[in-house]
Amino acid sequence: MSLNLSYDDENVFAKIIRGEMPKVTVYEDDHTLAFMDVFPQSEGHVLVISKLSKSVNLCDLDEDEMCFTLRAAQKVARAVVKALAPDGFRLVQYNGEAAGQTVFHTHFHIIPVWEGRSLGRHGEGMASPEELEAVAERIRHAL
Amino acid sequence: MSLNLSYDDENVFAKIIRGEMPKVTVYEDDHTLAFMDVFPQSEGHVLVISKLSKSVNLCDLDEDEMCFTLRAAQKVARAVVKALAPDGFRLVQYNGEAAGQTVFHTHFHIIPVWEGRSLGRHGEGMASPEELEAVAERIRHAL
Repeated sequence: MSLNLSYDDENVFAKIIRGEMPKVTVYEDDHTLAFMDVFPQSEGHVLVISKLSKSVNLCDLDEDEMCFTLRAAQKVARAVVKALAPDGFRLVQYNGEAAGQTVFHTHFHIIPVWEGRSLGRHGEGMASPEELEAVAERIRHAL
Repeated sequence: MSLNLSYDDENVFAKIIRGEMPKVTVYEDDHTLAFMDVFPQSEGHVLVISKLSKSVNLCDLDEDEMCFTLRAAQKVARAVVKALAPDGFRLVQYNGEAAGQTVFHTHFHIIPVWEGRSLGRHGEGMASPEELEAVAERIRHAL
């Protein structure tokens, strides 16, 4: 079953952590990394991951690293709210392909929501690095 | 803006915590409570909350209580996977009415997903206490 996959060191986020693929960073500390989703469902869509826990999904995520990751997510969410003034936001985490997971390194989505603007579909519509950098700069400034 | 609401002690989850409204409990400890969503989007839809942090949404959730809540959510998610064998599950948390929040006490949804079964809409379709108790019993047994 897809929830019991073993961790693949060649997944995209593992490569991003190792610096083998580019990212637009919003926040980073010893434990966690927050970066812009390249397929944003809305402006300011950020992903937050643990750099240390090699976990496929929430079931095998190290408890302490989970706390660090959530602390980082909360920090980033507050900055997103301050910087972009959305009407709301969602914190979402998909486990298993059936649930919408596309990269098998546990990750939390922060998705800002505005009334009257519908969200894009998960994994569709790629943003340019320039667009992402402009939004990331506003969020970083609000951290 | 709706993300800046002050906490209302009369919200439904505050009443559930105080025992003034019924709940179907899945898991409880000194810090957290996990109970069945009465408007399940799928079989086994559980809500996890902090009993101690009077927070409206993720932005004002106490950091330590957030960690306790996530640890409980992880424990319950593992039990849901063991008990119901979904193809996947989502961990979802709505902040602000625009993002789909309906009760203004921070809560995490655990929503099991099966291939070929579509999810119900958030807040529609009430389940009977008997149905919820039957599923809760299976999840509790797997804890």
